[in-house]
Amino acid sequence: MTAISTILLAKLNIGIPMYVQLYDTTLRDGSQGEGVNFSLQDKLLITKKLDEMGFDYIEGGYPLSNEKDFEYFQQVQSLSLKHAKVCAFGMTRRRGVEAKDDTGMQALTSSKAPVCTVVGKTSDLHVTEVLRVDLEENIAMIRDSLSYLKSEGREVLYDAEHFFDGFIANPEYALSTVRAAQEAGADMVVCCDTNGGTLPEQIAEILAQVQKELSIPLGIHCHNDCDVAVANSLAGVDAGAKQVQGTINGIGERCGNADLVSVAANLSLKKEGYEVLTAGAGLTHLTELSRYVYEMANMNFRVNQAFVGRSAFAHKGGMHVHAVNRIAHSYEHINPETVGNERRILVSELSGRSNIVALTTKFKLDSDKELMGTILEQVQELESQGYQFEAAEASFDLLVKKLAKTYEPKFQRIHYRVNVETARQENPLTEATVKVKIAGGGEVRHEVGEGDGPVNALDTALRKALIPYYPGLEEMTLVDYKVRVINSAEGTAASVRVVIESKDDQDVWSTIGVSENIIEASWLALVDAIEYKLFKDDGELQG
Amino acid sequence: MTAISTILLAKLNIGIPMYVQLYDTTLRDGSQGEGVNFSLQDKLLITKKLDEMGFDYIEGGYPLSNEKDFEYFQQVQSLSLKHAKVCAFGMTRRRGVEAKDDTGMQALTSSKAPVCTVVGKTSDLHVTEVLRVDLEENIAMIRDSLSYLKSEGREVLYDAEHFFDGFIANPEYALSTVRAAQEAGADMVVCCDTNGGTLPEQIAEILAQVQKELSIPLGIHCHNDCDVAVANSLAGVDAGAKQVQGTINGIGERCGNADLVSVAANLSLKKEGYEVLTAGAGLTHLTELSRYVYEMANMNFRVNQAFVGRSAFAHKGGMHVHAVNRIAHSYEHINPETVGNERRILVSELSGRSNIVALTTKFKLDSDKELMGTILEQVQELESQGYQFEAAEASFDLLVKKLAKTYEPKFQRIHYRVNVETARQENPLTEATVKVKIAGGGEVRHEVGEGDGPVNALDTALRKALIPYYPGLEEMTLVDYKVRVINSAEGTAASVRVVIESKDDQDVWSTIGVSENIIEASWLALVDAIEYKLFKDDGELQG
Repeated sequence: MTAISTILLAKLNIGIPMYVQLYDTTLRDGSQGEGVNFSLQDKLLITKKLDEMGFDYIEGGYPLSNEKDFEYFQQVQSLSLKHAKVCAFGMTRRRGVEAKDDTGMQALTSSKAPVCTVVGKTSDLHVTEVLRVDLEENIAMIRDSLSYLKSEGREVLYDAEHFFDGFIANPEYALSTVRAAQEAGADMVVCCDTNGGTLPEQIAEILAQVQKELSIPLGIHCHNDCDVAVANSLAGVDAGAKQVQGTINGIGERCGNADLVSVAANLSLKKEGYEVLTAGAGLTHLTELSRYVYEMANMNFRVNQAFVGRSAFAHKGGMHVHAVNRIAHSYEHINPETVGNERRILVSELSGRSNIVALTTKFKLDSDKELMGTILEQVQELESQGYQFEAAEASFDLLVKKLAKTYEPKFQRIHYRVNVETARQENPLTEATVKVKIAGGGEVRHEVGEGDGPVNALDTALRKALIPYYPGLEEMTLVDYKVRVINSAEGTAASVRVVIESKDDQDVWSTIGVSENIIEASWLALVDAIEYKLFKDDGELQG
Repeated sequence: MTAISTILLAKLNIGIPMYVQLYDTTLRDGSQGEGVNFSLQDKLLITKKLDEMGFDYIEGGYPLSNEKDFEYFQQVQSLSLKHAKVCAFGMTRRRGVEAKDDTGMQALTSSKAPVCTVVGKTSDLHVTEVLRVDLEENIAMIRDSLSYLKSEGREVLYDAEHFFDGFIANPEYALSTVRAAQEAGADMVVCCDTNGGTLPEQIAEILAQVQKELSIPLGIHCHNDCDVAVANSLAGVDAGAKQVQGTINGIGERCGNADLVSVAANLSLKKEGYEVLTAGAGLTHLTELSRYVYEMANMNFRVNQAFVGRSAFAHKGGMHVHAVNRIAHSYEHINPETVGNERRILVSELSGRSNIVALTTKFKLDSDKELMGTILEQVQELESQGYQFEAAEASFDLLVKKLAKTYEPKFQRIHYRVNVETARQENPLTEATVKVKIAGGGEVRHEVGEGDGPVNALDTALRKALIPYYPGLEEMTLVDYKVRVINSAEGTAASVRVVIESKDDQDVWSTIGVSENIIEASWLALVDAIEYKLFKDDGELQG
């Protein structure tokens, strides 16, 4: 234990581990994100997953806002949750109405949610200019709403909107709003950086001041508009917050909310003196949870996402790979498995032998020194032509099979032809013909297909030719198609790299083709994608 | 000025604005990101853009590692940069060699770069276990390498790898490595959080201690593995770092580097007492820069990216939209225009006017309110189809001409046909025919061309048809050709965006085409590229 680390540990009050509650609002604040839209079923499934992982609070929605959210609160009661408390979100009562008569309040109580999270205004600007009520009425709205919900026997969390902006502009008024919340019986005051414009040092300094004023616990709710929502949440915890509100993968309006994936991992693995997720094992499901939520939200994964991204523990530089093989943690800040992620070694122009060995272990070929050498040479030769296997692991596996002489083609091309023709400004007509010989003395098949573009037409014709022999191809679909010009100095005469991403019910795989001709490059990638699928189905990829 | 804000401003030493250098390593560390691969031309174009915006240092590559990086340093000398210094990256000399005989050192000096950035080991673990040299030899490697480069008259920055991990494990040794760097004449020591495992409070505390030991300025280089790279960089600056190293959009190995877009915006807009980007106006080009780099790297934008994302100022929640209509800053932490971004109200996709006006001033049309409205509508319509004008200013200029009714086509297409045919594994034969009518009652020309690919064949045929009338096209060459699938959910049937970059002796310009058919999309971009060249030569682009 050296000087510095003791200083740090001391500062982080080691020895008194503090349990930090995680409050997930993926289903409410998260669903405000652009393009995010959860079905009722999605919401129930995500609720179950969050509960299994030990999240403490799950904000299910805003019962007043729509039928779906209202339904959610009815159906969620039949999920027997192990640990999490379900929260209904709402606003303080409207001006000049009694709380019990306010439709928002009624929606909260009839939701039957054990916890109600009520948002109210902190910033005098918002009260007078946006809400257009006087400052005293706003205080009354907070007090009445919370005391009514307490009288209905709910746990009540008060979300102080624009807390930090409001406090900086008018600390006295901001404090009077949260004092009112405490007097009305709120169980917690959550300070919200609604616009995401606050920096960590401000969060720390302001929360410390609020703590002096209140006896009930504080929570922190941050947005990522300055790209520091996670740091802000951690600063809030260091300043005494007992709860962090955020969303899975940080989805949410504008730049999103604090990413609870990163917050949980940092609090439990990187900082001393804190505990999260009662089900400690929860942490090892973070990667799975992150991808699950992306799937549900129908969003693409962020490959470079901290802790859980596909690239989070991917090593490309030959020097790094070399080092990681000697000592894993030399270029890894944590063991990927602690968050349910895995290490990946990428082949690239910077590759050395160590990348190849690491990648071929699954074929149990890595002991074959000579083969390793051949593969390395071949990879470097192909990469000098523009191949890039880091983005095409399936093509790399096929290459290994070929060089290991365990490769039997499933079909052979005799020829193909693509024709694109147009008149005036109309859309072109595209037709492709494919002639292939099925392996193992199969017949010669000659088929024609149309498509929106040449690759689509080739794909159509090729499937027509192969599916009678390989019905498994029915399950395979193309997910993405990327094209890149390599030695672009040559302009349109340069060679072209095509990467195709395909999937079936089990897997996603990428293949690559390089040629001066974009059609030929696409054909090569397409054929690899199909062959990979066929080898996979025949269990021929374990080597 | 209220209590709290004065405290904060005081703390942030208001009144003594400190200039913070921005060191961009997009072209070196950024290119280690998964799937990132810049062509030589991309690297030169990005260098130019960064220089125009006032970045202080641009790390162009690692001359020893590959031919492309070596070439870069030769060609970059002919770009007359206004402000930025170009840096070559390398490592300390190998064990037991004299610096002057070390191939890495020689690559650095022969790169002719005015600045050399040398990385060396700080962590005793890395020295003894990974590098496997003894601790003294590592110190000698640092000292010899830096003093050799100084004797060659270079500015030398020392990147202390794994500085924070090394310091926590063995502060004495860590400090001895950077002391050696200072004694050898390094102009700056840059403390690197190579594994991205350090948190802001540790960065602050450790940097403060290092400052006491050294008299030369410190820099900070962070990675995002804990999702706090931006906060770490800001903490480093508060602790006295005079330089922040990072990449545009935070691209880089694993979870990437600190995003200089967020760092620049936070230092200049959110924190008091700091200045960045000598060309102050640089900040208003951040959004453009971010998207430009994504295009060059052929990556998709992150819609929710802080400051510059398409959603960064997009309002979805009805309450928010309502409030924003009353007072813009009620849900916006800054004015979007300060970073060249724009507000979007998602329910009514209302956006862009300011950009349009900015982009049309050169045509002296911006006073024409009605035309501005028409252009705005048209741009929104086209962008909803997948057009992206940030990366295709030439196509935008042509669009403006069309809508301003100052556009006279130089030729009209009657039809084209492309045929790609192949046998066995041979390269396909590609033939294109083009039939066009030259403007102003010119003849109908029907030409045929061959090419390496369909676009090259079309280009050849089209030039054959046009050059007799427009000999200026002889000077025009295609520099780059990029393809992106837009709604990739559709696989090969999705629509395709083609961006073509062309140049002549004076300019480089980009044009775009979108279609479900890659051939048609390429044709559209190709025709724009040619027409732009012809209008340019006729001086018809000043409006």
